[in-house]
Amino acid sequence: MKLKLGMIGGGQGAFIGAVHRIAARIDDDYELVCGAFSSDPEKSKASGIALGLAANRVYNSYKELIEKEKLLPADERVQVISIVTPNHVHFGPTKMALENGFHVILDKPMTFSLAEAKELEKVVKTSGKLFCLTHTYTGYPMVKEAKQLVKAGKIGKVRKIYVEYPQGWLSTYLEGSDQKQAAWRTDPSRSGIAGAMGDIGTHAFNLCEYVTGLQVTQVCADINIFVDGRKLDDDGAVLMKLNNGASAVLTATQIANGEENNVKIRVYGETGGLEWEQWDANTLKVKSNVRPTEIWRTGAGYVSSFASHNTRTPGGHPEGYLEAFANLYHNFALSIKADIEGKPASPEALDYPGITDGVRGMAFIENVIASGKSEIKWTKFNV
Amino acid sequence: MKLKLGMIGGGQGAFIGAVHRIAARIDDDYELVCGAFSSDPEKSKASGIALGLAANRVYNSYKELIEKEKLLPADERVQVISIVTPNHVHFGPTKMALENGFHVILDKPMTFSLAEAKELEKVVKTSGKLFCLTHTYTGYPMVKEAKQLVKAGKIGKVRKIYVEYPQGWLSTYLEGSDQKQAAWRTDPSRSGIAGAMGDIGTHAFNLCEYVTGLQVTQVCADINIFVDGRKLDDDGAVLMKLNNGASAVLTATQIANGEENNVKIRVYGETGGLEWEQWDANTLKVKSNVRPTEIWRTGAGYVSSFASHNTRTPGGHPEGYLEAFANLYHNFALSIKADIEGKPASPEALDYPGITDGVRGMAFIENVIASGKSEIKWTKFNV
Amino acid sequence: MKLKLGMIGGGQGAFIGAVHRIAARIDDDYELVCGAFSSDPEKSKASGIALGLAANRVYNSYKELIEKEKLLPADERVQVISIVTPNHVHFGPTKMALENGFHVILDKPMTFSLAEAKELEKVVKTSGKLFCLTHTYTGYPMVKEAKQLVKAGKIGKVRKIYVEYPQGWLSTYLEGSDQKQAAWRTDPSRSGIAGAMGDIGTHAFNLCEYVTGLQVTQVCADINIFVDGRKLDDDGAVLMKLNNGASAVLTATQIANGEENNVKIRVYGETGGLEWEQWDANTLKVKSNVRPTEIWRTGAGYVSSFASHNTRTPGGHPEGYLEAFANLYHNFALSIKADIEGKPASPEALDYPGITDGVRGMAFIENVIASGKSEIKWTKFNV
Amino acid sequence: MKLKLGMIGGGQGAFIGAVHRIAARIDDDYELVCGAFSSDPEKSKASGIALGLAANRVYNSYKELIEKEKLLPADERVQVISIVTPNHVHFGPTKMALENGFHVILDKPMTFSLAEAKELEKVVKTSGKLFCLTHTYTGYPMVKEAKQLVKAGKIGKVRKIYVEYPQGWLSTYLEGSDQKQAAWRTDPSRSGIAGAMGDIGTHAFNLCEYVTGLQVTQVCADINIFVDGRKLDDDGAVLMKLNNGASAVLTATQIANGEENNVKIRVYGETGGLEWEQWDANTLKVKSNVRPTEIWRTGAGYVSSFASHNTRTPGGHPEGYLEAFANLYHNFALSIKADIEGKPASPEALDYPGITDGVRGMAFIENVIASGKSEIKWTKFNV
Repeated sequence: MKLKLGMIGGGQGAFIGAVHRIAARIDDDYELVCGAFSSDPEKSKASGIALGLAANRVYNSYKELIEKEKLLPADERVQVISIVTPNHVHFGPTKMALENGFHVILDKPMTFSLAEAKELEKVVKTSGKLFCLTHTYTGYPMVKEAKQLVKAGKIGKVRKIYVEYPQGWLSTYLEGSDQKQAAWRTDPSRSGIAGAMGDIGTHAFNLCEYVTGLQVTQVCADINIFVDGRKLDDDGAVLMKLNNGASAVLTATQIANGEENNVKIRVYGETGGLEWEQWDANTLKVKSNVRPTEIWRTGAGYVSSFASHNTRTPGGHPEGYLEAFANLYHNFALSIKADIEGKPASPEALDYPGITDGVRGMAFIENVIASGKSEIKWTKFNV
Repeated sequence: MKLKLGMIGGGQGAFIGAVHRIAARIDDDYELVCGAFSSDPEKSKASGIALGLAANRVYNSYKELIEKEKLLPADERVQVISIVTPNHVHFGPTKMALENGFHVILDKPMTFSLAEAKELEKVVKTSGKLFCLTHTYTGYPMVKEAKQLVKAGKIGKVRKIYVEYPQGWLSTYLEGSDQKQAAWRTDPSRSGIAGAMGDIGTHAFNLCEYVTGLQVTQVCADINIFVDGRKLDDDGAVLMKLNNGASAVLTATQIANGEENNVKIRVYGETGGLEWEQWDANTLKVKSNVRPTEIWRTGAGYVSSFASHNTRTPGGHPEGYLEAFANLYHNFALSIKADIEGKPASPEALDYPGITDGVRGMAFIENVIASGKSEIKWTKFNV
Repeated sequence: MKLKLGMIGGGQGAFIGAVHRIAARIDDDYELVCGAFSSDPEKSKASGIALGLAANRVYNSYKELIEKEKLLPADERVQVISIVTPNHVHFGPTKMALENGFHVILDKPMTFSLAEAKELEKVVKTSGKLFCLTHTYTGYPMVKEAKQLVKAGKIGKVRKIYVEYPQGWLSTYLEGSDQKQAAWRTDPSRSGIAGAMGDIGTHAFNLCEYVTGLQVTQVCADINIFVDGRKLDDDGAVLMKLNNGASAVLTATQIANGEENNVKIRVYGETGGLEWEQWDANTLKVKSNVRPTEIWRTGAGYVSSFASHNTRTPGGHPEGYLEAFANLYHNFALSIKADIEGKPASPEALDYPGITDGVRGMAFIENVIASGKSEIKWTKFNV
Repeated sequence: MKLKLGMIGGGQGAFIGAVHRIAARIDDDYELVCGAFSSDPEKSKASGIALGLAANRVYNSYKELIEKEKLLPADERVQVISIVTPNHVHFGPTKMALENGFHVILDKPMTFSLAEAKELEKVVKTSGKLFCLTHTYTGYPMVKEAKQLVKAGKIGKVRKIYVEYPQGWLSTYLEGSDQKQAAWRTDPSRSGIAGAMGDIGTHAFNLCEYVTGLQVTQVCADINIFVDGRKLDDDGAVLMKLNNGASAVLTATQIANGEENNVKIRVYGETGGLEWEQWDANTLKVKSNVRPTEIWRTGAGYVSSFASHNTRTPGGHPEGYLEAFANLYHNFALSIKADIEGKPASPEALDYPGITDGVRGMAFIENVIASGKSEIKWTKFNV
């Protein structure tokens, strides 16, 4: 049984929409049945036709999509809606979709503001529908393995986390040229109050809390705009305290000239350490003062069910970003199918980012932007 | 327009069939419409149903599939058939499919013997249908970049090639246990005259000829069986001479305990060198005596159209084995669509392994197995 | 002509004394002629004899060494004194040695306090003698190359620096056992007000200012003690602002379980980036948004005179920590010999850390420890 | 007590002589007391004076050195002679030195021919003096660890070895320019019958036999000259069989454009594998099909006495080529001192390459050069 999938946003020329569609196809859990791919009706139509959709299932707006799909017979109607618009068009369609009975997959950061996020949290709970937020990096099997190892006590009580997300692509005033990705990401009216901190800082933050199972309680942020004329932060570093007494350093930058998305996390506990980075995504380094560092690998026989469940190929055949993304879609599909069948989903299937991650991510943005402007060192992490 | 895809082999429990199906889905060029997934009709049926096929399009044998599909109206009929059976069941269905007007994607090594391969070459030419052989590693963007750099003279006239394919999984008598993959690969009645040389040596050989654009002319092989009771080679090394005077060393082994498919190639010319390995598949090292080694990366702005055409994500988001495999499927689809439209396909689309690769791969197997038994050092590479 | 070298501290069982002696021997610039190796006269004697010194040149205290050596004829008398005692015994012997006409090589951090450091700065200037502080990491050829590339504008105006020094060896209460290295480093009466920040944080700080040629102007520090019972910081992170508007993140920790001194620096400018780490010390990565990352290597023909001057072997034969240390000794020797001959030393020879590095290092300690206790975010870097 | 060291060859402009002298100094076991540094008396004198030797201990020829030193009183006389001349001047001075009562350290390859090597073996045995051959790479602590792990059964019975030594520096006709190193290495009258095979192939061969404890019994070689006008091989690959049934592939080349001495060995046994390469010399990878690859590191607490005995610094402070070389000198010194004291040397001290390595290395050269010309595949490894 394939789930019927609709998409809001992601028309021709968009980047992340295509990624979502590949992710949805990889494990064959979904069938794309409808979409409102652009706020420009002609562009939406052209995009939908190119994707092979029937013309009457390509809509001019998200509202039209939700309203009309709702009227279709249950066996034709869309079941899950992917929302891949810029940040300022996250809340509206997500709320409306959930309230009208559709499950939602939403791109991060979750909303335009923390207030919207908390409102959305209520909507999710009330609606009873399932919600997935695409913090892709937690979809990597070796990131999942890291979480499981921390949980199992492999490195002891966590003391220190270093998490970083370096990019170089915004080293110049790219938004001044005709670059669609740069344009909306640096525009406060579409992106929100944060640039780098929202776009990639939230990924680093989510990775930190996901792997450790801890929560940030205080932050101290240095937030910068390096490129002349830019309106939102393109660089930042955050000192963080966590709820078990651990300490963390988070860095996210878009002006690290020459860097290309090598998101990386290192976690140190009382008896060992872990290191993972996207460049070498199928490897997890397990460290210790008293034993050789171990190179844990995707596809190996010794990894946990959480890693093997999220892997398709034997060891040595690298899986990458699209497969990590597909893991979110696949697990969300398994959870929806379980929901439909009235059965409990497996712990592995339920291990996808959701509404709580989204609320905390928006809180991260608001807290670090506020901290960046504050003269006080430590500020409480408010949600 | 999606191409209608059928599959022969690849039923439940098989490894490579699932990989083919993912590869076919990633770029949305195909729709799976029929299959004969197993020589066991019940297993074939169950596999097809699980894949969401209509029961009347799941067949009991490849013959039935081809015969019955041929009778369907053109707009329903399968157009492309993937054949993912063990080696001894490659020739029959491929020949029949081609002769009945279907395009074919075939798993490597191409046939059971060189004689079959040469027979198949004639069938392909006569049929006028398109044929793709899944030498996956040439689907990686950075392998394609390597080929383009050699072609453009970046490293000068090629002198030396080192190509290696190390595996460890057959370090023990795995075929003695109930391991399906090990069982057929070590069985001469299903695999042919070679074990490691056929299964992975052919990949290394293909990579060597693909990247350099050269042809092997002489071989000197050391072929070994290390595991007691095994019937086919599990290890080998081949010294090779190429048609421009270059020299190569090819190694392929299944008893390198601890290794997991890190296929690697290094090519040295008069003015520079290249290095690529699957572990770090999105990187190509470009070397020189007089300049720093350069780290060329998938997704970067400076790579050729052959690399960028075969990449879906921005730099730093790793693509892997499944995307390399998808590149074969996608380029084959582009070529078929061009064929249907009566237009020429682009050079990038036409850059997929075909019948010539298959014939040379089978010649590789027969030449190196013969050389392994010979007391003469150099033997001519006969095709 | 070999320079006559004396040593204060570094008796049997010490670690860094032996390193200094190897460093002094590698390039054959020095002859060890005397020493006061321990505050315990018997141990000092035994150490000196084991090192092949004449008994009358092994002294019971640094005072005795300086006083008695001063009385020797000029052609016998020690010329340079290495001081390798714990931090609280840096100032006294260094001041006395300089004031009595001896050149000094001193281990870092320079003194027990910033006040001492500033006092020592005056002594150095007044004495007219030469002074070298062993910030070893700036002795690596590829660190020197990094500095030269920044200076030459290779990466444009510097914007962001990440520098880190991770260790794991103090993850437990090692000072509670009989571990000499741990004991004095965690003892405020011997180490001063800082633990990790003084022992390794100063190295990271020095590396940052050395490579960029910039100066830190403000700091915001998170200073921690993770191990129960420990008296000094074993972990810290410092946000820093530099005098050209750049921003930096410095981390130094001794509780990163499994880490072993992989000091690392990344510098990003408007047009490129640089990356160096001790694990792969003979490599410097030169990055850019528009070109492949380049792997610059020790011993290559394209590196600057600052790198090649500090390298002994052809490319590919790794030089390491002891050679980096030897570079300090060698350049200091060249500078002293030039001084003796009344000639100017070469820029390459003069490129060793000195009194200014030492004063700034002590200022780093006092500023970050103060910042760690402050509720204000940014504090001015006072010297 | 320092041993009195003399040197034959290694005058100004030579490369390896300076390396030997650094190696001899690092652990302070030797005092250079005399030398005959060049066949040109003036150059010899100038070199000796520059090294600080007394003029009367700088000789015009090795014969003069040996004859005159022999006449000196025992407490002044040289005890150990380092011979660092080109290959054709190895046998003469070594034989004469040994026969006159001096211990000898000799650069590799041992002699000009196998016949000389076997003659020298007799001389060593008759003389009763100690002999060390500088196969530097076996001096690395992690290479020693590899040998110990094989010996202890960590990877089971050895099946397959890959050993490689790639260089690029002779990619052009460098001997046509004024390049001293290239000139003698490519000159049959000074280098012998082999170029690359003698200069670096012997290192790879020695590494193979050292780490595995096995002996090569048969070879099949592909020997090439790629550069026009060159007189000796600049490239080769050798298939080898070992005395326990294992199989090996050895490659050595000087035309791998862009490569810089990254000698590497991989050994696979029935239950695991090992990998070491010079680029990352302080790491040994320990592999297994059933456990994560382990990263064993120099300076760690878990390594054997053979590794820790040959290490000077704590983990993470890299030691390199000069320290590996120093390990040969140090262990040879310990063995000589034990000999002088009439005590047995420790197993760790005795672990340096000697006459047997030298004879087998010369046999390697003669066997592979002969095999390269033979039409028979496998030829017995004759000694």
